[in-house]
Amino acid sequence: MKDAALAEILATVRKELAQKTKPAGALDRIDDLVLQVARAQHSAQPQVMPATALVFAADHGISRDGVSAYPREVTAQMVLNIAAGGAAVCTFAQACGANVQVYDVGVDAPAFDAPVHDVKIARGTQNIRHQAAMTENELAQALQVGHAALHDALKHGAKSVVIGEMGIGNTASASALAAALLQDQAALLVGPGTGVVGSALEAKIQAVQQALDRVGPTTDAHALLRELGGFEIAAMAGVCLAAVEAKCPVIVDGFISSVAAMCAAAIDANVANQLIWGHRSEEPGHDRVLAHMNARPILDLQMRLGEGSGAVLALPVLHAACVMCAQMATFASAAVSNREESA
Amino acid sequence: MKDAALAEILATVRKELAQKTKPAGALDRIDDLVLQVARAQHSAQPQVMPATALVFAADHGISRDGVSAYPREVTAQMVLNIAAGGAAVCTFAQACGANVQVYDVGVDAPAFDAPVHDVKIARGTQNIRHQAAMTENELAQALQVGHAALHDALKHGAKSVVIGEMGIGNTASASALAAALLQDQAALLVGPGTGVVGSALEAKIQAVQQALDRVGPTTDAHALLRELGGFEIAAMAGVCLAAVEAKCPVIVDGFISSVAAMCAAAIDANVANQLIWGHRSEEPGHDRVLAHMNARPILDLQMRLGEGSGAVLALPVLHAACVMCAQMATFASAAVSNREESA
Repeated sequence: MKDAALAEILATVRKELAQKTKPAGALDRIDDLVLQVARAQHSAQPQVMPATALVFAADHGISRDGVSAYPREVTAQMVLNIAAGGAAVCTFAQACGANVQVYDVGVDAPAFDAPVHDVKIARGTQNIRHQAAMTENELAQALQVGHAALHDALKHGAKSVVIGEMGIGNTASASALAAALLQDQAALLVGPGTGVVGSALEAKIQAVQQALDRVGPTTDAHALLRELGGFEIAAMAGVCLAAVEAKCPVIVDGFISSVAAMCAAAIDANVANQLIWGHRSEEPGHDRVLAHMNARPILDLQMRLGEGSGAVLALPVLHAACVMCAQMATFASAAVSNREESA
Repeated sequence: MKDAALAEILATVRKELAQKTKPAGALDRIDDLVLQVARAQHSAQPQVMPATALVFAADHGISRDGVSAYPREVTAQMVLNIAAGGAAVCTFAQACGANVQVYDVGVDAPAFDAPVHDVKIARGTQNIRHQAAMTENELAQALQVGHAALHDALKHGAKSVVIGEMGIGNTASASALAAALLQDQAALLVGPGTGVVGSALEAKIQAVQQALDRVGPTTDAHALLRELGGFEIAAMAGVCLAAVEAKCPVIVDGFISSVAAMCAAAIDANVANQLIWGHRSEEPGHDRVLAHMNARPILDLQMRLGEGSGAVLALPVLHAACVMCAQMATFASAAVSNREESA
């Protein structure tokens, strides 16, 4: 669709919103969310429901170096927990009307005997301190996992997707990616993740800086994903990249999914129009990523959990915005006096 | 129920939340919402759905003095709009799974030929610049309207209620109430409301200050409701007061409903335990009220609409918190390694 056609769609939506029975400006933020969905869908009838939360799980070579407060095997355990409906994202999704699909892109465990999409590329990435996280071929596979996951969700009726992740050690990988893209030092991006503090946090910062020093100064997002990424991070980037052609809104969760989205937007600038920012994470690097993306998340609930949990909680606000656009009366239709008439 | 029994309930919920499969502290804010609902309900199985939005509408004598950007007749028009499902709160409630009930407590119009609860006390309050808004008997009626509305919602199965309002001129009344209770000058509380700016805003500040000067220095919330309140504000206060005995959580909306809740809490300190703060309004006085109540709203979407719209949008987050508490796995139940084991 040409830009002129999209501009016309957005003008139509803006005009409709301006006629709704509310004081001028009273719902500016909600109106803006409607326009974001309309822009992502190239549609004057924006809608986000049904929605699917795509949760990608993988392990990280660097997790053997103690960059997480939790042991490596938790990734596999949490995949089973998500598949069984027991994880936070599952309960939030149940409450908010979303469907959850979990993908094993690279968990260090045998195939799961559970409702998990088995798209395992390898049993974890290599250790980014010492070598590239993955091969070029593995990166292509991970991006393709995201592409296929998005299209599977769309095939099953989804109008929007949430991207989320599970991977012990993945804040280290995401911090390295963000630091490289933003040309910052590791210390500015690395945070506690699941709860790393004190000397362990110092060690995490050093590990990430070592990975950055190894790679050297490049902001080529594709190369950085291969060098510093994770399979789940690349898969989320793949969802974002595929969302452009598919005209699907992608609701971004916290720090790690935001870094994936930032990588995708660096590869294809059109990605930015597909992204809706769900939740501001407590992870300190998130604010730097949000500022770079000029993003203002819907929620700020001081969560730092991942799994797509924050984005799922933002879904009802987006849904309400779309229902408002579709169903709220106008001053004319409801015969309500507008302020112009009161002068 | 004795305080010791409530403390035991809360300790049970805290213990349960601490065992959920999430990094320590990752959901502190959500956990806190669970505890707020548990405290309000005196229950270790907190739940907020089904939820009913109680929207109270009334007119104000002071609205004849040009304190609103919209004409007085808009109150009645918007009541019909809410009853017909066309108002913002209706569309948000549909999206968020809430039921809306609208009460005519004092609209300056004949009885509505629409699904509106006809509990009209008078066709608007008196002008608070010159005399008490209502008589003692009228205040008692308005408080009783809130009491009855809450119990009607509970009878129909509601586990929580939202309080919202519609009333042209009611930010002036609410600002006067807040200024009196907080012992502030009118200029610190009065804001644009539906969009009053410039010299009209100056006139609104003067009108509110005149009302404050008339009443003189008192912080007796009951007396202030009679002197400066509105029928819809008093009805919302009545909901909050009745919620203590009924053990019902009340989700507070923006500035006006917050002032009603503050009045109720000043009358009965137990009210504070029933209140859950849904949305931070753009109306400047709201921050002062929130600070006084030590309240941190769930959402901050820069809305300034009223009708209960912000609180309704917060409902899914509260619901998700309760579903999380009920259904999320524990480290033990999901066989996930906790961080203590990783040392």
